[in-house]
This record gives sequence, structure tokens and C-alpha cells, in this order.
Amino acid sequence: MIRVAFFGKKGSFSHVAAQKFFSGKAAYREGESVKNVFSRIAAGEADFGVVPVENSTTGSILETYDMLLKYRMHITGEVRLKIHHQLLVADKTIRLNDLRKCYSHPQAISQCEKFFTGHKNIKPFFTTDTAAAAKLISETHSRDCAAIAGLQTARKYNLFILQKKIEDNSRNFTRFVVIGKKPNETGDKASVAFGVKHVPGSLFKALAPYAGHHLNLTKIESRPILDKTWEYIFFVDFEINPDLVDFKHTIKDMKKETDSLTVLGIYRKGKTYET
Amino acid sequence: MIRVAFFGKKGSFSHVAAQKFFSGKAAYREGESVKNVFSRIAAGEADFGVVPVENSTTGSILETYDMLLKYRMHITGEVRLKIHHQLLVADKTIRLNDLRKCYSHPQAISQCEKFFTGHKNIKPFFTTDTAAAAKLISETHSRDCAAIAGLQTARKYNLFILQKKIEDNSRNFTRFVVIGKKPNETGDKASVAFGVKHVPGSLFKALAPYAGHHLNLTKIESRPILDKTWEYIFFVDFEINPDLVDFKHTIKDMKKETDSLTVLGIYRKGKTYET
Repeated sequence: MIRVAFFGKKGSFSHVAAQKFFSGKAAYREGESVKNVFSRIAAGEADFGVVPVENSTTGSILETYDMLLKYRMHITGEVRLKIHHQLLVADKTIRLNDLRKCYSHPQAISQCEKFFTGHKNIKPFFTTDTAAAAKLISETHSRDCAAIAGLQTARKYNLFILQKKIEDNSRNFTRFVVIGKKPNETGDKASVAFGVKHVPGSLFKALAPYAGHHLNLTKIESRPILDKTWEYIFFVDFEINPDLVDFKHTIKDMKKETDSLTVLGIYRKGKTYET
Repeated sequence: MIRVAFFGKKGSFSHVAAQKFFSGKAAYREGESVKNVFSRIAAGEADFGVVPVENSTTGSILETYDMLLKYRMHITGEVRLKIHHQLLVADKTIRLNDLRKCYSHPQAISQCEKFFTGHKNIKPFFTTDTAAAAKLISETHSRDCAAIAGLQTARKYNLFILQKKIEDNSRNFTRFVVIGKKPNETGDKASVAFGVKHVPGSLFKALAPYAGHHLNLTKIESRPILDKTWEYIFFVDFEINPDLVDFKHTIKDMKKETDSLTVLGIYRKGKTYET
């Protein structure tokens, strides 16, 4: 059976993403951090990992890119989850007016800002992930505490939904990547990291090959290289043809214009699931 | 006297950045969130604001871009701080072995991961910002609690430095922007937001003018538009000549290739300060 490590506790959004991708035919294992998911694969404790890489509201999770480069692992798949946040309580008789505290991951809390503005009696408190918040209130059973987490987490910890979909933006989604030791041979999407010199037009020249081969860019992000203050690394995603002909030409041409280029993975475009 | 709102509590890194930029000749006011800093300026309670926009380890603070567009405000300045994290305690007799808990902002804790791996007796707990963590331990005076924050925060709350520079990466810096209602007339750097259609080569065409006018790109980031799943907005920073001749030509040419284009601000490149 395939062994899959995911970020967070059981019932976390990464766990849900992993179950969608592997259709339940896998043995799942918690990873306490993004790095821990990578180190479990490196140590042979898991075959694949599932970690978040980008949220439409809060941006990229750069740690995932750092770990892909550090551990020399590959993106082998992708899953998108439409994130809905539910206000969860431990007992079905608890009402909004009873609440004083609400636990969740800092990103989840910041995605529900309007809820907190409208309910000044409820103060937010941070936990390491949304499932940890759910676990906490299921254990303490306090009548003045709630948690913000997803539907699957509510079911996992036998919690009650006091208010549905309390997120500010209803089109909030998170993109997760599946990571592994071996690269795929084909796919319709590719992720690439490359460095360029800090001179006028350098990024433009590096991107020229993708435009010349009519590939569609779906993401670009620059990042200062930590130990070289005036150089940059770029992370780019393309849509590609599964025969890889144009992609291989693009990479060959890009290598001429970049200082370093790493193909992070070739994979099938991920489906989007509701949560 | 100029009134300046900053993100976080007194002694926070945004407060330090504000003091470096305005050289102490200002009245400072706390803002409980990035949004709150903008709303204080909109309400006439502050003339300028100082908020984080990018960290070299954890990435962009997209909320700052959202608020610039939502409130139609302008970037009028920039400050960079080299972020050093100090392990702070309330009493000088407290030793590492006494500690069980350590409070700080989630980003600060994630930037000190090696410290926590090496000290399994100390569990991290999240607060809304680093200054809130310092305030908490200065009030409770518990012998088993520490906080992670900067030097200025330690001074502000009369705390003792038990261990210096516990961050994983010694070249960790955060970029802050100064925001205001009125745009500057000149500067040597510009920030621009623009949207393009999701078709092959569209970003490349939008960037062609900057390369043609020999401007140097220092940041680029794509972001899916929340309500239009397959369209993107890009945030770009350029180095420009203070006469703005090339910049104005670039913007004019870029407008032909983009769906929407907003100049977020023209300002002087920020100095970098130690913390």
C-alpha cells in the first residue's frame, strides 16, 4: 500500500487533498511541518507527500519551494481545494452569544476577518493548524470556545456546525502539490525554478522561449536569494503538451538565458474539489 | 506633526521601520491589522501608514496589495529591516532549562525552527505580533515563559536577552512600505499592478515595454483574481530614472497589452537597517 505523509493533523486540508488525490487507497501519516513531510519521504517512512503551495488569498507557501530544492524532490501531482471555513462547537446547544474564544490557524482566522468584526464578543486565538483547533475544543468541551475548520475536520472530531462558510471570500482556494522522489515522465503542466542576473531585461530574456513556443504561463513569482541580496530566483508554472516537445525546446532555450534552471516537476493539472 | 499609523503594537518591526523612515519626527499610532492602518488613514486619523509587504523567507504579504487597491492609496516610501530574532525573558536569572513555553508571531516562530528543534523542552505558542508576545511575558513574569522579538521590543518592555539571533537564516529581511493618500511626483523605484488575459504569451507581451526601455525589474508576482478563476493580476516593481521619461513610456506601452494597469506608487528605494 502506498504510504502518504501530509501536512498537519488528521482531518487537515492537506489530509483532505491527499485523500482526494489517492482516492483512499493509501496509508496516511501526519507531518508536523512542511519540512517534516519532506524528511519522512527522504527517510523512507513515506512514498509521497502532500503539502500546500499557494492560497488565493494569502499567497505562496515559499517553504514548499525551499524544501523541493533542498531535498531535490519532484512535484508529481496537484490538487485544488475550495476552502470553506465552518464555525465549530463541541455541543449542539451552544449559541453564538455563549462564545468568547475561537481557535484556528492564523491564515484561517485572517480569512474570516468579517466574522470577527461582526462578533466582538469572540476573540481569535492561534493554533498550529485548523485540525489542532478542532481537537482542542473536542477535548476541553468548553461552552465558550469555538474552532474554525473544514467540514471533514468537524466530522473527524464529532463537532457541530454553528455557522456555515464564514470565510470573507467565497472563492478562496488552496493549491496542494503531491511530492515524491522520482519525477513523472509526462503531464500537461510543469513547474520550473530559475535564477537570473540583476540586470535590465534579464527576466524578459529568460521568459522569451515560453512565449516563442506558445506555452501558457499560470504562475510566476520572484524571490530574492537569501545569501545573495541582489540576485533573484523565479518560480514559474506552465501549461504544456503531454508530448513534451515544445516544453523540452523551451527548457533548452531558457537554459541559455538563466544562471541555473531546475525542473521541479511535470504533472497532470489538478482537479478542484469542494470542502 | 505628521501622524503615522503602523502595523502591530509599539516596538513591533513595523514601528521600528516607521521610526527609521520618519526619523522620530512623528506621532505614532498602533494599527491592529494591515487593514486597520489603511482605514485609519482613510478616516483622517493618520497621514501615513507603515506596513510589511514582503519577507525574504516567508514571501509577500498579499493583504497589503489588496488594501492598496481597495483604498486607492499610494506607496510613498520603502524601508528594509534585517530581521534578527532574540530570545527574551522577564528576569535575568531565568535559564534555558527553566523554559517550557515561548510566545511569538507565527512567522517569527517559523523563522526560528532550528532553535525549537534543538530545545524540545520549549513549546511554541502564537501571538498576534512579536510585541504582543513581549508584552505578555513582561506582564505575567512567568519563569517558564520566553518570547521571540527584536532588540527594540526587548528595550520597550524591559526584557532580558537570553539568547541572541536565534533565526535560522542570518540574511532574513522584511520590506515595509510607507502608504499615503497622495502619490509622490518622483522617485527611483515604481510599483505597478496589472491584469492580463489567460492566453499564451500575454504576460510576456505586457513585460516587453520594460525590457525595451531598459528598466530593471526587482519583483514580480502573479495572483489569481479571486472572482475570476482563470484571470491573473501581476504585481511588479521596477528601478526607474527620476526624470520618469522611460517610466512614462513604459506605462503607456504596457497599457496597450494589459486589461487594467494601476501605478501603486513612485518612491525612493529604501535603505536597509539592522534591528
